[in-house]
Amino acid sequence: MNKADKSIKTAGKAAIVKPAAAKPSLLAIKGGKPAAKAAAAKPVPLKSASPAADDAPVIALNLPMAKLTPAMAAYFKKCQDRLGFIPNVLVAYAFDMTKLEAFVAMYNDLMLGESGLSKLEREMIAVAVSSQNRCYYCLTAHGAAVRQYSGNPLLGEQIVMNYRAARLTKRQRAMLDFAVKLTAQPANVEDGDRERLRRAGFSDRDIWDVAAIVGFFNMSNRIASATDMRPNTVYHGQAR
Amino acid sequence: MNKADKSIKTAGKAAIVKPAAAKPSLLAIKGGKPAAKAAAAKPVPLKSASPAADDAPVIALNLPMAKLTPAMAAYFKKCQDRLGFIPNVLVAYAFDMTKLEAFVAMYNDLMLGESGLSKLEREMIAVAVSSQNRCYYCLTAHGAAVRQYSGNPLLGEQIVMNYRAARLTKRQRAMLDFAVKLTAQPANVEDGDRERLRRAGFSDRDIWDVAAIVGFFNMSNRIASATDMRPNTVYHGQAR
Amino acid sequence: MNKADKSIKTAGKAAIVKPAAAKPSLLAIKGGKPAAKAAAAKPVPLKSASPAADDAPVIALNLPMAKLTPAMAAYFKKCQDRLGFIPNVLVAYAFDMTKLEAFVAMYNDLMLGESGLSKLEREMIAVAVSSQNRCYYCLTAHGAAVRQYSGNPLLGEQIVMNYRAARLTKRQRAMLDFAVKLTAQPANVEDGDRERLRRAGFSDRDIWDVAAIVGFFNMSNRIASATDMRPNTVYHGQAR
Amino acid sequence: MNKADKSIKTAGKAAIVKPAAAKPSLLAIKGGKPAAKAAAAKPVPLKSASPAADDAPVIALNLPMAKLTPAMAAYFKKCQDRLGFIPNVLVAYAFDMTKLEAFVAMYNDLMLGESGLSKLEREMIAVAVSSQNRCYYCLTAHGAAVRQYSGNPLLGEQIVMNYRAARLTKRQRAMLDFAVKLTAQPANVEDGDRERLRRAGFSDRDIWDVAAIVGFFNMSNRIASATDMRPNTVYHGQAR
Amino acid sequence: MNKADKSIKTAGKAAIVKPAAAKPSLLAIKGGKPAAKAAAAKPVPLKSASPAADDAPVIALNLPMAKLTPAMAAYFKKCQDRLGFIPNVLVAYAFDMTKLEAFVAMYNDLMLGESGLSKLEREMIAVAVSSQNRCYYCLTAHGAAVRQYSGNPLLGEQIVMNYRAARLTKRQRAMLDFAVKLTAQPANVEDGDRERLRRAGFSDRDIWDVAAIVGFFNMSNRIASATDMRPNTVYHGQAR
Amino acid sequence: MNKADKSIKTAGKAAIVKPAAAKPSLLAIKGGKPAAKAAAAKPVPLKSASPAADDAPVIALNLPMAKLTPAMAAYFKKCQDRLGFIPNVLVAYAFDMTKLEAFVAMYNDLMLGESGLSKLEREMIAVAVSSQNRCYYCLTAHGAAVRQYSGNPLLGEQIVMNYRAARLTKRQRAMLDFAVKLTAQPANVEDGDRERLRRAGFSDRDIWDVAAIVGFFNMSNRIASATDMRPNTVYHGQAR
Repeated sequence: MNKADKSIKTAGKAAIVKPAAAKPSLLAIKGGKPAAKAAAAKPVPLKSASPAADDAPVIALNLPMAKLTPAMAAYFKKCQDRLGFIPNVLVAYAFDMTKLEAFVAMYNDLMLGESGLSKLEREMIAVAVSSQNRCYYCLTAHGAAVRQYSGNPLLGEQIVMNYRAARLTKRQRAMLDFAVKLTAQPANVEDGDRERLRRAGFSDRDIWDVAAIVGFFNMSNRIASATDMRPNTVYHGQAR
Repeated sequence: MNKADKSIKTAGKAAIVKPAAAKPSLLAIKGGKPAAKAAAAKPVPLKSASPAADDAPVIALNLPMAKLTPAMAAYFKKCQDRLGFIPNVLVAYAFDMTKLEAFVAMYNDLMLGESGLSKLEREMIAVAVSSQNRCYYCLTAHGAAVRQYSGNPLLGEQIVMNYRAARLTKRQRAMLDFAVKLTAQPANVEDGDRERLRRAGFSDRDIWDVAAIVGFFNMSNRIASATDMRPNTVYHGQAR
Repeated sequence: MNKADKSIKTAGKAAIVKPAAAKPSLLAIKGGKPAAKAAAAKPVPLKSASPAADDAPVIALNLPMAKLTPAMAAYFKKCQDRLGFIPNVLVAYAFDMTKLEAFVAMYNDLMLGESGLSKLEREMIAVAVSSQNRCYYCLTAHGAAVRQYSGNPLLGEQIVMNYRAARLTKRQRAMLDFAVKLTAQPANVEDGDRERLRRAGFSDRDIWDVAAIVGFFNMSNRIASATDMRPNTVYHGQAR
Repeated sequence: MNKADKSIKTAGKAAIVKPAAAKPSLLAIKGGKPAAKAAAAKPVPLKSASPAADDAPVIALNLPMAKLTPAMAAYFKKCQDRLGFIPNVLVAYAFDMTKLEAFVAMYNDLMLGESGLSKLEREMIAVAVSSQNRCYYCLTAHGAAVRQYSGNPLLGEQIVMNYRAARLTKRQRAMLDFAVKLTAQPANVEDGDRERLRRAGFSDRDIWDVAAIVGFFNMSNRIASATDMRPNTVYHGQAR
Repeated sequence: MNKADKSIKTAGKAAIVKPAAAKPSLLAIKGGKPAAKAAAAKPVPLKSASPAADDAPVIALNLPMAKLTPAMAAYFKKCQDRLGFIPNVLVAYAFDMTKLEAFVAMYNDLMLGESGLSKLEREMIAVAVSSQNRCYYCLTAHGAAVRQYSGNPLLGEQIVMNYRAARLTKRQRAMLDFAVKLTAQPANVEDGDRERLRRAGFSDRDIWDVAAIVGFFNMSNRIASATDMRPNTVYHGQAR
Repeated sequence: MNKADKSIKTAGKAAIVKPAAAKPSLLAIKGGKPAAKAAAAKPVPLKSASPAADDAPVIALNLPMAKLTPAMAAYFKKCQDRLGFIPNVLVAYAFDMTKLEAFVAMYNDLMLGESGLSKLEREMIAVAVSSQNRCYYCLTAHGAAVRQYSGNPLLGEQIVMNYRAARLTKRQRAMLDFAVKLTAQPANVEDGDRERLRRAGFSDRDIWDVAAIVGFFNMSNRIASATDMRPNTVYHGQAR
């Protein structure tokens, strides 16, 4: 092993935290919706909540955290309690409460709210889109979620690498084909594409949800890439 | 003129409504934020508020409008009062109040909230991104906004067609180069790209805002393409 | 509005000339063919014929106008009389009479000569090709022509932005699909593509004409981009 | 050798005609310009002028030859006398004299008229552009021309295959880099690209000529691909 | 969880075998070179050597295993002894001993033979190339190798997802930039690219090795994709 | 002819060697397999075996030839005897006998060993792949092979330029469509693609062979491009 190899080894190893048991993933906590009138005002002490190796800046922009609003403080506390950590994307947005609240509201509605799509399906879309855009943050966080929700570690890897290698149902395949086309060639999506989703059993409301999740991750992928957002290292070991 | 030509002519002509005077454009109304305690509860009668030719469905999905929440009813009324119409993207989202409110909150913060970017600059980003993705809805609505904010009809056209043809300041050019690269090749954005923005005078907070707007329109472009969203015809004649 | 915004506004506004009434567009004047024995020898005084704001150089190359041949002087005069201006592409070519005459001869035959394609259809091809190549000059000049010939301002905008968003007849859609494929992937055009045009009602002669117009604008788009050719500002306001 | 292999062999072999001696190539004959005062009115009997194997249709469209105008009859005769054959592109255009004359006028001016570019350089551009577009007709005909003008058979092959593999002068490399960029990404050509040509010794008039030739072959490549135009087989053996 | 989700879960879970301890990975066993004089003639009983869930066909082509030559039988035995399994790529090639031996000879020389590149660096190239080509088999097998050789699980994930997100040394970055360019745009690699490697400390022999490994995985990725080659499931859990 | 043109002419002309009679091409000599027990130990004096103009370095890396092993010396001698020259790719690999032997073993098995694909078909794949990758070395060497094996000079040119322009059998077309898709978009190859080959008469073993040859030339193209490998000039004149 040459010197360069060794420095990588040293830098990376300690950072992996294997959680004792798989827990609900990501931002998977309802209640962050704007209405949350929660009292909880004391900001979560972020430093202590994260493993040592995560002390590195979350993004490549210098944007100090603002004081959490009561609603967001309560939300961060829930994340800490249930996940054992605050997802870094929330830390990244926390320089501005208006932006954080808008992001959380949209995220929670899309990924955890009512929908004809299962939560696994929504995470599969997240990963297929993020693979197309090669987004390190989202592939890491949402790849873990696919592993968790499916109980199938391989499925998560396959969608990260090339969703065409996964053994999907016809419904799932139609869904991811649409997601990837809408990501790569949005201008070419037309009636025929919607019709294919309908033939695979998706309602018009489901089609909206697919489109909205594809859109959301095309947004998030770009914000993550633009800011060099780093995922919590804990994701890597989850649900393997 | 052959027959096919004629049918197009007949169909399209009446639809154009030239507004008597240019007004603030788009969703450009503050106050739609979730907290909006507004009383205004009577839903805006959408049919009568829109010109006849806009009776065509706004999107290619069958998603009937839900009852507006008081906050959203007030917001729609403001749109009607100040713009003379309800932007079709709002009508499209109005099948679900949670989604509509999340969209409006994020949109208004990004495009109308505090920022080191002028409103014109934000609209220029919206159009440059939408041109890359060839999004008919967003090019129409935000092309009009660039024409209005700049008072320069040519500038709007140029960014719709090819932003490189516009006579931009160095700052604007750096901003749009970043926006287009982040749109077309998000995986390739790195430190050097952020550095170029800093050298052009953008603060780290400004860089976040550029990235967030680029992300937002990469989302909206895809939702519009996935649903065949049609812009209000009134945009076409605005600020020419 | 920040300073940069203002300078754009100042520079651009005055340049827009809204023509009192829509007139036949572009180079749409027969008779420029080489044989034209016309007497008219006095060169058109170009400066006075153009609006003030068009004093900026037409292209980014320093190529002084040559003395017009009698045929070309007559042609320029016709343009001035009927359009109210000389299209800048003609001014650009006017540094060399052989090149100008060859261009005019080919243009007028393709766009105004006998053909199974309507003039609107030819302009639709011009715009769809130019959109693919993002050519500012041709999108501006021929977008105006589509608006004029169709009497449908929206149609012009739609083909500039994304022809798939336009409500086209099957014939028009087949024609533009062929045009865009031939533009973007010429090496992949094969028998099946020609067959699709035939099934949509195009004769072999029509197919030649489609191909020749696609070819012509792939040429013109590149000459315009290579020279930074600027369209007459008057186009922007035409037939809105 | 299997059966399929054999049928190809049979079909192809006889078709190659090795010319006794290299002659000036292509359309390389001045005087086809519209003014051509030539008397020569009797149309060249095309069938006898071409080698047997060239009896296959020149294009995949059924467009019977028209009666040649005196100017074009004279031009075809010159081709036959000097080259020993009529280039198939001329045969293809000969269904319509206006189109043929416009094409010949433009071609002869660009490729054989006065210019700061040598004829070899113009042919190098033709081949580099046609390689980018993978145009069988133009690579065959103009590849032969590069072999002839340069007296260097390898150079022709290299530009057909990948111009970056050729040992070019700085001037030639700058010229072909510009040609290939203008072909592949016309919307991205800007001042810097023109500046690079100027630094390599090209005048503004030379830049126009480069652009015009690039444009012309982007047109011709597409007409050839759209019609499946077949080159005269004689080109294959020329100047090897 | 809906039905489709469940079937995936059932199918995938049992398949993961977490090795008690990390062992040398892949084909990482010298001695498979053609000369191998080994006696070992009894073919490895493949079925028993693989975990139950790997009973699925290794590739989507029906190519029954041939009798192993003594050299290959010895090689398979070594794999079994040291790795605990036979890498599926070897099983795939084992329908033909000439092909298997040629593959093993080339693989072992490139990845395990003498070189100025460390074994980790070679695996990093393998993964960066396979990420560009989105090859499920190679990303899985060689991603595990990067995790093992580096002792840094994150590094493996990062290069799978987007090597630009990894914190690389200048040498490693130059190496992977070259690898990805050579993969994505081989025709554009020129002297400048080689020079950049030299400036990063690579000798000419090292450059050959980089090129040869890039070439090898561009071959293997395509054979794997063409045959739908499935990686041993054991890789997924290795060195996490 | 300007000066730059002339220098090219001088440099290239003498280099072309027209072989008196077509001979078996390339590496087309069996017996280079590792087992080769040949005694022949005296290394072929490479300088004298090659024409003068080939004295230029074979690759852009400084890698001196090693002493040939007896097997390789015998193989080089056979090349010299039968082809009249040593293919430069062998010279390039000859800095390291392990690499040379592995390359020769794999090459000879794929291109000359038993297969359901004719030798012509294998060369057609080689050229179609190399055209996609624009590899000067492989197009030159294998283009000559297609000309030789088919006895149809045009066929070789067509596949170099654009295989879609060749008049292929259905079988050949299916084969090259697969080869080009696997080259350009390996991640998208799926069951349907294999099925298309089966329907065109290819067995599963044939499909492996197609894939392996496509893979091999995707490797060789990249090694050639990475090292600027120059083909023997003799290829250019072969089988015209």
